[in-house]
Amino acid sequence: MVGFETVRGMRDYIGLDAEKIRYIEFTFRDLVTKYGYSEIIPPIVEEFQLFALKGGEELRDTMYVFKDKADRELALRPEITPSVARAYIKYLQSSPKPVRLFYFGTVYRYDEPQYGRYREFRQAGVEMIGDSSILADLEILDLLYNFYDKLGLSDNIIIKINNIGIFRKIMDKYNINDSLQEHILHLIDKNKINEALEIIENVIKDNTVVNFLHDILSKKDLKMEELKSLSEIEEVSRLDIKNEILYLYQLAHVLNRLNMNFKIDLGFVRGLAYYTGLIFEVLHPSVQFSIAGGGRYDKLIELYGGLPSPAIGFAIGVERTLLVIKDIKIEEPTNIVVIGMTEDAILTMILISRILRKEGYKVVLNSKDQPLSKLLPYYASQGFKIAIIIGQQELEKNEVTIRNLNTRKQLTISLEKVQEAIKQML
Amino acid sequence: MVGFETVRGMRDYIGLDAEKIRYIEFTFRDLVTKYGYSEIIPPIVEEFQLFALKGGEELRDTMYVFKDKADRELALRPEITPSVARAYIKYLQSSPKPVRLFYFGTVYRYDEPQYGRYREFRQAGVEMIGDSSILADLEILDLLYNFYDKLGLSDNIIIKINNIGIFRKIMDKYNINDSLQEHILHLIDKNKINEALEIIENVIKDNTVVNFLHDILSKKDLKMEELKSLSEIEEVSRLDIKNEILYLYQLAHVLNRLNMNFKIDLGFVRGLAYYTGLIFEVLHPSVQFSIAGGGRYDKLIELYGGLPSPAIGFAIGVERTLLVIKDIKIEEPTNIVVIGMTEDAILTMILISRILRKEGYKVVLNSKDQPLSKLLPYYASQGFKIAIIIGQQELEKNEVTIRNLNTRKQLTISLEKVQEAIKQML
Repeated sequence: MVGFETVRGMRDYIGLDAEKIRYIEFTFRDLVTKYGYSEIIPPIVEEFQLFALKGGEELRDTMYVFKDKADRELALRPEITPSVARAYIKYLQSSPKPVRLFYFGTVYRYDEPQYGRYREFRQAGVEMIGDSSILADLEILDLLYNFYDKLGLSDNIIIKINNIGIFRKIMDKYNINDSLQEHILHLIDKNKINEALEIIENVIKDNTVVNFLHDILSKKDLKMEELKSLSEIEEVSRLDIKNEILYLYQLAHVLNRLNMNFKIDLGFVRGLAYYTGLIFEVLHPSVQFSIAGGGRYDKLIELYGGLPSPAIGFAIGVERTLLVIKDIKIEEPTNIVVIGMTEDAILTMILISRILRKEGYKVVLNSKDQPLSKLLPYYASQGFKIAIIIGQQELEKNEVTIRNLNTRKQLTISLEKVQEAIKQML
Repeated sequence: MVGFETVRGMRDYIGLDAEKIRYIEFTFRDLVTKYGYSEIIPPIVEEFQLFALKGGEELRDTMYVFKDKADRELALRPEITPSVARAYIKYLQSSPKPVRLFYFGTVYRYDEPQYGRYREFRQAGVEMIGDSSILADLEILDLLYNFYDKLGLSDNIIIKINNIGIFRKIMDKYNINDSLQEHILHLIDKNKINEALEIIENVIKDNTVVNFLHDILSKKDLKMEELKSLSEIEEVSRLDIKNEILYLYQLAHVLNRLNMNFKIDLGFVRGLAYYTGLIFEVLHPSVQFSIAGGGRYDKLIELYGGLPSPAIGFAIGVERTLLVIKDIKIEEPTNIVVIGMTEDAILTMILISRILRKEGYKVVLNSKDQPLSKLLPYYASQGFKIAIIIGQQELEKNEVTIRNLNTRKQLTISLEKVQEAIKQML
């Protein structure tokens, strides 16, 4: 005798828990399809390098990596965007732009399990490739907002936004290379602002810029007017980041008119290293972590060997989103149990159940060898509405007995009239 | 610049290919729910031992096995039944019996890729635990048959059945231990009948029995009457397998009445080592391999440390089933494209699209910077039915132009009348 457990940090979803996962999936699936997104299902296993290349420091350290029998270095995907980029380059580069794709699947991170953090969890996401317009960015934010609106959460969530292009442009100006940029952004993401600024100071040796960056990083909730004023200061012109700031202003203007809850946070950075422009996260007051996030990554496709292609996307944390939903109404079809009182009734049981399932009922065949006096209360307690009883006598006459398990009314009728009788009884 | 490929034997499903996978999934999901099955979603990664214990020789050799950072020996699941058994023991052992569960997910086998064989593929399956009756077996076969009926394949498939309990009982009688039984059944499965019989001959040293087994293994398509006659011969009484044969007869009797295509094959064995009673596979004339299979495994739960619990289930090969389906009709909602002729139109574009998606339309926002003379034929060619055009003039008057892309009729109306106008235009 042995006993098995799930692997640490991974879990089973059974019954209602599984239905909740599917509720998120189907709500998402229905919505994104209406936005014109097509599904992509990439493999869960990919080459390690696909994720290592541009995932960011944290991601690289928490990947499940292993070798297969042919010595390939593989990884369980820690996110799905790199797979979409890979597939886009192979199959969709010559398709009309923009290409709109969505996905739903598991991802893996070898991290310390805690509240809201599993080693296997699910992401629902979209990617729009081949469109650099502000309309594309707004479509993505509108889609994300409407998803949470469908879940009844739009009044509670806040979408935090920033334009990482501001940092990027400054760092590019001072020739800070990609991997150092990645490290600096990682430090800011981990709230190690001083460490990040120190590195920058060492490289660019210009105190005004460092002070300006320090100032920007502290603006955690900027009003529209403040953003406008910021765009007009001299340092902004000198650093050539006016357009990047005005972009945020223009975006925020439409978000306001769409009644979205959002905040502009110039100190906000995301863990993934591939973002180049708009970045955003969805926050909910009941949890400390973000429940969804994404951004623009205009250089990833090229880095992977594709043609230069602007792109933007997001990933929703499915389990984390479930944590902030209070109650989910899951509709049950009417339950019917078919009880045969003799082994000869088996064929009739199956034939009746086939007919009733085609009508949309949920039909269970009883195989418990117990008297009706036990079975009927049992099935009533399990939420069944109707019992169909086939005894030896009924069988001989081609009849069945139908019983409403709530009202306890019952009648015996010929087989052909079962559907009609059930409709009247419900 | 780098170039990435999918891992050998694994593939992407994009657009229509992904829709086909989902078509199978949703057909399955809808059907099993109506049979009273609840979903279970176990992790894709499990302890290696969970699968090694009773998967059978072939499975053990083709598993993706690896160690995590804490030196746990893990595997990508090669099948899902062991995970269901594990979860059943932990969470469902005290639930009312039978417990009916279904799953849909990927499985992994490190095998030589070929037609119909991937290293990552999908299985849709059910398990019924806690019921040893013939009614349970018939429910499972009826469910499997109705699934293929929903796909329009019920006239083409053949369900091959056997009772592995016949072999088991004979081998038990001669005290052949479990691991040798596994080996013998594996050889029969691989069509190495003589090798298998040689081992049996060495152990039981009774030529009559070996000859009888040889005889049984050659009965690849037994008629009902032949089965009946077989049940009455002396050797069957002596080996105490009459009930096992009569069980097949009784089962076949109902299957006949349900008009299922099936054949009784006493030489048929399945690769998985845990089956104890009824086993079955679904065959289709257009492919060499089975497209689904399953059986009764009454000892697996106990082996895993649970209470003795009879169980039966099946797994459908999703990709293999897709190979034998000729055409799938996938319904598209009506496509509408919203075209803004000025950047000021962005807000109106988003607001209109929100309203129309709520009505069930699929609505795409145009961000291509091209003249209408190019855009309209382009969207017509992509299958869009309606274009909504918002120029500067319309914007100022709170109006939009609606154009039927097939008939090329168009009209300009006020914003509030868009929904009504579209209905009339379609």
